[in-house]
Parts: sequence; structure tokens; C-alpha cells
Amino acid sequence: MLEDKNQNSTSLSDLGEFGLIRHLTDAIKLKHKSSVKGVGDDAAVLHFDKQLLVTTDLLVEGVHFDLSYVPLKHLGYKAVMVNLSDVYAMNGNATQITVSIAVSNRFPLEAVEELYAGIHLACKMYGVDLVGGDTTSSTKGLLISITAIGEANKKDVVYRSGAKPNDLIVVTGDLGAAYLGLQVLEREKQVFQANPNAQPELDNYTYLVERQLKPEARKDIIQLLKDLEVKPTSMIDISDGLSSDIIHICQQSEVGCNLYEDKFPLDPQVIATCEEFNIDATMVALSGGEDYELLFTISLDDFDKIKGNPNLTVIGHIVDKNEGMHLVTRANQKVELTAQGWNALLKKD
Amino acid sequence: MLEDKNQNSTSLSDLGEFGLIRHLTDAIKLKHKSSVKGVGDDAAVLHFDKQLLVTTDLLVEGVHFDLSYVPLKHLGYKAVMVNLSDVYAMNGNATQITVSIAVSNRFPLEAVEELYAGIHLACKMYGVDLVGGDTTSSTKGLLISITAIGEANKKDVVYRSGAKPNDLIVVTGDLGAAYLGLQVLEREKQVFQANPNAQPELDNYTYLVERQLKPEARKDIIQLLKDLEVKPTSMIDISDGLSSDIIHICQQSEVGCNLYEDKFPLDPQVIATCEEFNIDATMVALSGGEDYELLFTISLDDFDKIKGNPNLTVIGHIVDKNEGMHLVTRANQKVELTAQGWNALLKKD
Repeated sequence: MLEDKNQNSTSLSDLGEFGLIRHLTDAIKLKHKSSVKGVGDDAAVLHFDKQLLVTTDLLVEGVHFDLSYVPLKHLGYKAVMVNLSDVYAMNGNATQITVSIAVSNRFPLEAVEELYAGIHLACKMYGVDLVGGDTTSSTKGLLISITAIGEANKKDVVYRSGAKPNDLIVVTGDLGAAYLGLQVLEREKQVFQANPNAQPELDNYTYLVERQLKPEARKDIIQLLKDLEVKPTSMIDISDGLSSDIIHICQQSEVGCNLYEDKFPLDPQVIATCEEFNIDATMVALSGGEDYELLFTISLDDFDKIKGNPNLTVIGHIVDKNEGMHLVTRANQKVELTAQGWNALLKKD
Repeated sequence: MLEDKNQNSTSLSDLGEFGLIRHLTDAIKLKHKSSVKGVGDDAAVLHFDKQLLVTTDLLVEGVHFDLSYVPLKHLGYKAVMVNLSDVYAMNGNATQITVSIAVSNRFPLEAVEELYAGIHLACKMYGVDLVGGDTTSSTKGLLISITAIGEANKKDVVYRSGAKPNDLIVVTGDLGAAYLGLQVLEREKQVFQANPNAQPELDNYTYLVERQLKPEARKDIIQLLKDLEVKPTSMIDISDGLSSDIIHICQQSEVGCNLYEDKFPLDPQVIATCEEFNIDATMVALSGGEDYELLFTISLDDFDKIKGNPNLTVIGHIVDKNEGMHLVTRANQKVELTAQGWNALLKKD
């Protein structure tokens, strides 16, 4: 669908690098006082009184996304979310991004515009300025590298390393849907390859597919925590999978944990689809990844402040390091947690 | 030379993403007070009182570099230089970088280590902290995305847009050597492909090859300008080529310029090799690119401060916009400048 079949399409070579940059960034209006100067010089100029958060992520076609079922606009949106999520996971406010893309000549300008439409939409929805980047050609496929910048008062920054024994482990939203969305899309792709006239059947999986294609970073939770006057003792975003990410917190905090299987927040579509696909919903919740929910720990004293909030679920608690990291099953068995999360270097799809 | 032929080599899949990140970043010691927290959380945490400079560049195998003659350690070093150069071009001090790489499984760990050895060396030589990044697999080849962060007092930041009529146009170092170095390396590659027993003959081109493979960003010039108490009115680094880059300055400053062919600083090896290759040295100086020298304008009042400095050459002056942008040849003819610089989206080598 992305090949340059359209007679009216514009080739990237006709525009040239500078033409393309101008074309993609002309309409940008900077919103943040901290954005002194955006695109158009050797470097962007920013000004901060607070502490600065910087994070970067690389998305590679054929490794992180498959353009046969990922619309480019969604891809642009998601690429921004992946980075903003890391800023929120520090309890900060995302303020700027830079976007670099490498793109092969098989993409017409209109395809790159679609990608940037998603990037610009994400910037607008999340109040972030696009202040710089780089565009270049690639010998194969599409690659997106985004760096996100955010700010936080020094006293508000939350690291992975602050969890203490008896802290509660809290997760936002629900788990596993993005992974199942990917499985559904992969299945439909195979059906389509076997029979190109087949119509995709996605009606029963709308939530799963949306979670995969258009995740939302939890900016709202950072505001909610401020409103509730709760500062987490540690925090991470769930990109690799609950299991892998709680292990990061435990290792960096030098503690252990117990997670309770019966507490995991699962959407009804996740439960139904796990039954249909004959896979264990707990495994999906633990190892699925790409949920972009926030996983954090709070002091027991703060429990009353979050109790009953529909956005937040307590799924376990922190224990001493020598007690290890475990899942407590519905049958009350203790199973050691392992990092089976999505691993970019092993994944070969 | 980079394929995984070594029986003792370590596969990237064995390490996994987190193992690789730890392996590559374990020894990092942060040097800047502004680096509050580096690698190992969702985002790096920085603290600045000054203005912040952010720039990013993407280098793609087969587009920006050819691993058949670019050693990985040099590549890592150069990838950092390309970014630092943009920070210096704002008259700032580079303080941190993030490094993201996408790498196919044909690279053994030792190859990635070589790349990072060059990155770490560049950080050490230029006093820059590596504070974050991302590593992932690619379906083809190697890709490096670096974001550099720097700082400057608000009053010191130099944009491309401040050049005024009668300002002098100054360039650092000499021009065209990096481009010729590339031509020499390409020629040797073809000789080698025709006859794999041929020994490379690079003795007469050492300066050119070094300028191509291991450029140095002009941090020293930023200090020199401070010492001389000269603040340029506009500045850019020469990455695309003198012609293309002076056009950027003129367009953003809404002025014209006259460059004088007989003033261009050329190394003797550039002149000799241009004769050998039968190409025009002036064209090479104008359009070669990748020099990573600084190109800036200064007020006529500051001329006495820079006069006679061996690092700085006055090559022309700024004129009114309606006079256009020209090269004045040795024969005193005026030729309109065009942006024939290296264009990432058109280059197909």
C-alpha cells in the first residue's frame, strides 16, 4: 500500500533534503516558553529552570512495525507516544521532541506526510513542541528515531531505584491488550496473504487493535498523582512487559516483590481473546509488552489516597531482596519471575 | 571484514538488549555537574542554568558510510563529531549525548564494541557525557542516531540569522579535504575489488583520508573566539559544503554575499590531488562537504582581533540581499552560488 504507485505522487528526490524538511516543518508553532528556537539552525535552543529529562527510542521497519498493517499516521503517533511515555515514567512533563527519519526512495512524499501527520497530531494532543531532527535516505525501509525532552522539579523526579520493602506495586489501565492486538493483526495478515479477497475480521478485537496501533502515553496519570498528592517511590513504563519491567525496578531498588495473579487488571476482550487463542492471560499480562501503562510503587501510607481510583490497580508489594521476585498464583503458588518480555535483539518477525 | 567469521566472537542475540546496553555503558563515568543521572532509567536527568542546545543526526550504512573502508572505531568517533559540530556552530559547549544504534545480526559483539570504543574516545576527548540511548536490531546494516546536548549563556548563542551587510565571512581550517579523502577511498575500493591482492596506496593522501575518516569538531574555535572576545553575528558548521552552508546563512539572515575564490584555504594535498584527479579545487571547496569546519560572519569592527590568526581565513563579505550570492573568481568574474552540496536524499552510493 505504500509503494509509489500513485501517478500524482511526489518523489522525495524531487524535493531534496532541505525541501523535505521545510515541507514537513513549515507549519510548526512552538508552544512552550522553554522552546527558544526550534527547527532551522544547527541545534534547537531551549531554556529550563527545572531538571531536564531526555530519552530516545529507535523504531525499525521489520523489527518494531510491519507496514502491511500499520498505517503510517498511526506509526508516527505511536513513535511519539513511546518516547513521551518514558518522560512520564520519570514523573515529568514532556515538552519537546526531535524526530529523525531514514526512508528509502520507495516511499513517496505523501507517505512521509502521513507519518508526520501522526507525529504532529501526537505533539498537538500532548502539548509537545517538535524542535528539530534529521531526514535522510535509507537503503531499505523506514526508520524513526525520536528524542523526547521533558522537565520536572528536582523534588518530583521519580527513578526506578526508590522502591522500599512494604511499598505497594501499582499499575495503571490494563495489561496485555497491545500484545494480543499484534497477534490478531498478524493472523489477519496471514489470512490476507492466503486469500487476498478475504475481508479482515476485527470487530471483536477493536480495543486490542487500538492498543497496538494507537497507544496513549499516560500523561493524565502524572496529573492525577499530583492531584492526589502521591509521589511514587519508583516508576517505570511498561514497554517490555510487566515481568521485565518490575524486575528493572527490583534490581535497581535492590528489593524483591510479590505480584498477585488475581489482581492483574485485564480487559474483557483480553480474557475472551486469550480463550479463543488458547493462551494464558496471565502470561500475556506478564510478558506482552507495549502496554505503555505506568508501573510504580507507593508507600503504604499513601494507599488511602489511591484506593478505589478506577485508573489504578494494586497488584502486589515490595519485599526484601533476599525473598526474591515472585508471582503468587490463584492457587497460591509462588513462581519466580523471569524477564520474558519482548526483546528487540531476539525478535525476528 | 565485519562479518562474523571469528570463531571466538560473541553473538548479539546471546547477550540480549539489556545485556548489550549494560556491556556498552558499564564503564561510563559522568563528568558534568549538569548530568544528574545517565544511562539506566526511562530518561536521563539533566540540570541547566544556561540555555540548552539540542541537535540530532542519523547516519545510515550504505548512505553515509561504507564499512568496506570505514573502520568502526572511526565511524563511532565521527558520528559523535558530526553532532558536536552542530553544538559548537551555535557557539555553545557540548555536554551530553545519547546514542541509539540499530544493528543487524551479521555484526558480532566485537564490532559493536569497536563502534562504542570510538564513541567513548570522542566523549573523552571532547569532555562529553554519554547519558542514554537505545539499541535494537535492524533488518539490514548499521544505523547510528545521536542526539547532542549543549549549553550556552543566552547572550552567547549564535544563530544562522544574524549576518549583516559588510560583515566579514570567515572560515576555520581548510576546505575540500574530506570530500577528496572519500574519492581516494572509493578509488582504492574499486582497485581492491578488481584485484584483491592490490595494496592500498594512501601515502600521498594521509591528510585527506584522515579528514574523511576522523574529522574533529572545532571545539577549540569556540574557546578561541571567547579568548579573542569575538562573538560572530551568524555561524554554521560546514557539513553540506561551503556553498550550501553560506546560502543557509544568507537566506536566514536575508542578505547576500561575495565569496572570493583566491581566498579559499586549501591544503597542499587538496591542490595536488585535484590536479591528479583533474577536478577543480574551487568546486571541491564549495561543494565537497563534511569538512566540519565553522563558517561564520563577524562585524568589520572585529577584524583586527582575528587578523593573522592561522586558524581563521576571511573568504568574503556579506552584501545586501538584492545583490545576490556570488563567487568572485580569480578572473574577477561573478558566478552565482548554487547549493550543490552533498544531498542525503539524492546521494545513491
